[in-house]
Amino acid sequence: MAVYTEVTDDALGAFLSDYDLGPALSFKGIAEGVENSNFLMHMQSGPFFLTLYEKRVKEADLPFFIGLMEHLAKKGVNCPQPVRNRRGEALGRLADRPAAIITFLDGLWIRRPTARHCASVGETLARMHKAGMDFEPQRPNALSIGGWPALLEAAQARADEVSPGLADEAASELAALQASWPGDLPSGIIHADLFPDNVFFLGNQLSGLIDFYFACNDSFAYDLGICLNAWCFEADASFNITKGMALINGYERVRRLSEREVAALPALARGSALRFMLTRLVDWLNVPPGAKVVPKDPLEYLNRMRFHQSVASARDYGLLR
Amino acid sequence: MAVYTEVTDDALGAFLSDYDLGPALSFKGIAEGVENSNFLMHMQSGPFFLTLYEKRVKEADLPFFIGLMEHLAKKGVNCPQPVRNRRGEALGRLADRPAAIITFLDGLWIRRPTARHCASVGETLARMHKAGMDFEPQRPNALSIGGWPALLEAAQARADEVSPGLADEAASELAALQASWPGDLPSGIIHADLFPDNVFFLGNQLSGLIDFYFACNDSFAYDLGICLNAWCFEADASFNITKGMALINGYERVRRLSEREVAALPALARGSALRFMLTRLVDWLNVPPGAKVVPKDPLEYLNRMRFHQSVASARDYGLLR
Repeated sequence: MAVYTEVTDDALGAFLSDYDLGPALSFKGIAEGVENSNFLMHMQSGPFFLTLYEKRVKEADLPFFIGLMEHLAKKGVNCPQPVRNRRGEALGRLADRPAAIITFLDGLWIRRPTARHCASVGETLARMHKAGMDFEPQRPNALSIGGWPALLEAAQARADEVSPGLADEAASELAALQASWPGDLPSGIIHADLFPDNVFFLGNQLSGLIDFYFACNDSFAYDLGICLNAWCFEADASFNITKGMALINGYERVRRLSEREVAALPALARGSALRFMLTRLVDWLNVPPGAKVVPKDPLEYLNRMRFHQSVASARDYGLLR
Repeated sequence: MAVYTEVTDDALGAFLSDYDLGPALSFKGIAEGVENSNFLMHMQSGPFFLTLYEKRVKEADLPFFIGLMEHLAKKGVNCPQPVRNRRGEALGRLADRPAAIITFLDGLWIRRPTARHCASVGETLARMHKAGMDFEPQRPNALSIGGWPALLEAAQARADEVSPGLADEAASELAALQASWPGDLPSGIIHADLFPDNVFFLGNQLSGLIDFYFACNDSFAYDLGICLNAWCFEADASFNITKGMALINGYERVRRLSEREVAALPALARGSALRFMLTRLVDWLNVPPGAKVVPKDPLEYLNRMRFHQSVASARDYGLLR
């Protein structure tokens, strides 16, 4: 959540007049994330977020995200809640963008997760998967295997500027995954972006999940594969099997993986590494002039992808069966 | 105040253990400003800022800034206050940088100031000048006329990349100012960077000043010249004399300008336009790779500089005598 859009005091005042929150006592842009403009507002009644949805989030998807956050909270998954205005609407417009006020969630994200954090993340991921099972709206995953050819095409011509041979390696990886991609696994709502900066802790207690703007319908085990990539690699690119074990065991304490999911896990983790490598690569090659956000390094995920190629079974991630 | 430095949870916990504030309930990087890394922390007792001083702020100057904020607050100028740890120290170290916890000041900065805001700023600027008169530590202004030749030299070779003829125009402007720079004016502590984002309002009431990291000893009227540049030009680069009048009248309600200050004001405003043009130009030409901050446009200040060249007397800024 970075800041792309300037909000004038007059526009903010007009927007807030639709709510029962009173005037803002402070208003600060937040320097985290990459998709939306986020401001922390202090009101008489406490802190809130104001989110302006920038062009990477489709306006038609916003009711899905808003509804999902409300649904998950009702089911006991702690996450930020949209605040409805006097007309009962969670979405308004500000600075010519869709905008929402969201409750503030206490907690810090963990810069250097330990196995203990990974266990909590696994457990909460499984609880989220279960909580989403009766959420009816659907949103296909545009960034699953069906979306990767378009990403590759967007990056292919200049990929070798980032690393020689990268275009060919990504193309053959995509072909290998297309030939072996596991279908028809248990599916439902997945977070699809549960990186450390989207999970808050207070002390050692996981206090909530944020940023549901990639949430969609896809296989649960793919979400676990994303978390293996996001939580279990060290800064030197090595996989930490203790963390992998903690993550998977944490998950299975709440939702046991089927044999087919276990068998599919290496391909799913490998695919998710390709997915993040490709989106990062496209961003890397397309930094707009005046961008306020440093693109993340795609090569970090190239290294993860290569690790997953060497994985024989889910045992290599720490699963003990 | 942007975010340049990553703070791990362990390092933050260790740093906070020196204070009586308890643990952080949240910790977010703030996307404003350009000099330091700033984080907003929510503690049990309320919100605080954590500032990490990056290399552009000299460590030896920090006690001056800390002492000044404490002095001004005692004199009734509302500004953030350093929080002292159990050893009575306002400055510690975190992530290998000098760091301080600073109280949170309610208020919003005004994106589109009106004459009414300008009047409040003028009044508060004069109150700050008076409040600083018995502050004993001194800090010379490295960014006054004595520092401009070095800035020009740093930018000269590539200045014409930004605008053809800019190098020559800046050099002749510097020479003209050196030939006519007013000396020996009433002096003391000046803010030296009182732009709209450093002045907070609650409704129409000015609630406080922030960011004293350019504060130094220099002539009071130079500070007023900076504010004329910072507050009284419109987006189309035209000078708004109604705002100028409000700013100067507001100032004089608290501290009347001497005749020599009035006579010097055009040169001081012109010099301050050159100062911001030069620092912006140097930043513009030296954006580090991976920078998280967009440099500000130097040409905005080239236009202001040209306006000041056309000014015959302080009457052209709205002073009615």
